[in-house]
Amino acid sequence: MSNRSSIGSGSSCPPRCAGHDRIQLGHGSGGRLSGELIREWFLPHFTNEALAVLGDAAVISLRSDRIAISTDTFVVRPLEFPGGNIGSLAVHGTLNDLAMMGAVPHALAAGFVLEEGMHLELLDRILHAMAAACRVAGVSIVTGDTKVVERGKADGVFVNTTGVGELTPGFAPAPHRARPGDAVIVSGPIGRHGIAVLAARDELRFEVAIESDSAYLGPLVMRLRSAVGDAIHVLRDPTRGGVASTMNEIAVSSNVGIKLQEIYLPIPQPVGAACEMLGLDPLYIASEGILVAFVEGAAASQALISLRSEPLGEHAAIVGHVVSDHAGLVTLETQLGTERIVDLLPGDQLPRIC
Amino acid sequence: MSNRSSIGSGSSCPPRCAGHDRIQLGHGSGGRLSGELIREWFLPHFTNEALAVLGDAAVISLRSDRIAISTDTFVVRPLEFPGGNIGSLAVHGTLNDLAMMGAVPHALAAGFVLEEGMHLELLDRILHAMAAACRVAGVSIVTGDTKVVERGKADGVFVNTTGVGELTPGFAPAPHRARPGDAVIVSGPIGRHGIAVLAARDELRFEVAIESDSAYLGPLVMRLRSAVGDAIHVLRDPTRGGVASTMNEIAVSSNVGIKLQEIYLPIPQPVGAACEMLGLDPLYIASEGILVAFVEGAAASQALISLRSEPLGEHAAIVGHVVSDHAGLVTLETQLGTERIVDLLPGDQLPRIC
Repeated sequence: MSNRSSIGSGSSCPPRCAGHDRIQLGHGSGGRLSGELIREWFLPHFTNEALAVLGDAAVISLRSDRIAISTDTFVVRPLEFPGGNIGSLAVHGTLNDLAMMGAVPHALAAGFVLEEGMHLELLDRILHAMAAACRVAGVSIVTGDTKVVERGKADGVFVNTTGVGELTPGFAPAPHRARPGDAVIVSGPIGRHGIAVLAARDELRFEVAIESDSAYLGPLVMRLRSAVGDAIHVLRDPTRGGVASTMNEIAVSSNVGIKLQEIYLPIPQPVGAACEMLGLDPLYIASEGILVAFVEGAAASQALISLRSEPLGEHAAIVGHVVSDHAGLVTLETQLGTERIVDLLPGDQLPRIC
Repeated sequence: MSNRSSIGSGSSCPPRCAGHDRIQLGHGSGGRLSGELIREWFLPHFTNEALAVLGDAAVISLRSDRIAISTDTFVVRPLEFPGGNIGSLAVHGTLNDLAMMGAVPHALAAGFVLEEGMHLELLDRILHAMAAACRVAGVSIVTGDTKVVERGKADGVFVNTTGVGELTPGFAPAPHRARPGDAVIVSGPIGRHGIAVLAARDELRFEVAIESDSAYLGPLVMRLRSAVGDAIHVLRDPTRGGVASTMNEIAVSSNVGIKLQEIYLPIPQPVGAACEMLGLDPLYIASEGILVAFVEGAAASQALISLRSEPLGEHAAIVGHVVSDHAGLVTLETQLGTERIVDLLPGDQLPRIC
């Protein structure tokens, strides 16, 4: 980790006995306490060769000279929610961004801004979830950085993850590649992450029996790719801004129209109910474990079957198609048979859900 | 940028007319305001092919299959200081970490946590400085992310930069490679960054005629490498924790002793004076534009001459050497001829200087 901690073997001492139970300003000093924080709290979760060196940077070897890089900072509130925490989310979010480019994630860098006074046990749970998410995806955190700011100058912890993935020839889904005739597929129920996070906020005091869908989408992409290959034109994960914002970006980027059909949208009952109660539109609610795929019409059924063969994709559905008219616009055919424009929201529906 | 903004050509409208003069929560929504923030404030500074795509990730091509990755989050307070701001510092800091591994920086990813209410003009100055620092180093910001948190939940802006650099065979300076007989070289005056930042804090109310040394060290490394090649065993930039902490890490990592001689340490007069006034030790004050090089004794003079031929290195000095006794310890021969141990500080000397 580039925080210049002194280098040593991972402590055999469990975190509980580190002598502090909260983050102190000194943990960000680059001195002895910084070293302790890294050795006793971070390294036990993230053992790998590149990280163990604790140099200013990590060295990795690649099998490809074309790589994808993605970065995301996570500021979700609260830090823990049903189905995950900021740590697992930070791993899934960045790895999914790579997967949506058709890249195979290879390594992650992680940067932490810690607030003085944060409970180290909470940090430990977050790091534990990060490590578990990395293991599932087969990816390592190879380098990192920790900073500490005074009480009231952050909100517990912010986590940045930056991922590097390898690209292989012949597969390059991209937001500008949607074409008229493409089927629009959604791989699973929408809006679970946003509603789960919202429900976890104390101030709301409503209960929803729903967990965040936060998950790594790599296996879903692999399955889809082996089924229909380059018939996949666009892959995106509809996170911040939800399905509606994602579709708008693709419509503009590809200069095509997108027609969605409400009746096919997989909206879980609790998401629908919570949205009705709060006056929200599920189309704008973030998911963190589904993807949107634009697939050549002729390959659509095969793509759907392949997605449904994966646990993460069992509720996949074709929810619309691409048209050449109303380029740049997304429309929704409602269950009543009327059509409305699905626009970008001007501002916020739900701040800090990722 | 992975913030899912809609895609378009850079606005020809100058930032001044965006209709807001401060960051709002809606700027983090993933909706229309997020798109505006990116198009009108970020993109005009960072035009390059990879970034222009605004996908979830950037695609880059490399000339090497061995790369170095480094990440650092910057939380410096205040955001602007003599000699730079958080933006230039975030570029220099991460590029220097790559350069210290012997890597040639290729691309940067940047993640921003913005506090609601932050002045957009200040953000503009920060982005301007980032872009200028990138140009000097010949590196592009290829992907990025912006998040917004509520007033009082951050401190203006935190900036994460993650860099990818290319490694070439035959040159691999590393903290564990110091050997008895190596000369310890410091490339310039120490402590300028830490004292400049400290002096810029309102609460201190003292004036020091000193600027941060924040600079990209790549040219210095190139010069050194072409002069003495693999006789360079270790390169580090003594940032957080200063020269003392850096030396301690190297001593432990290489399992050698390091002897420094106070008389040769290039401590600028204003740094020395400020430290005396504040009860600080210049050995622990951060620099952001110098490097520490451990070079084979026989190549030391040549290394020194090569460093001094660069503007950044004109005050380079041999400040000590590596010994086989007292492995893991750093000692300082004072100007009085006595010897003392230069230990790691337990906690903080100066919080939030980077």
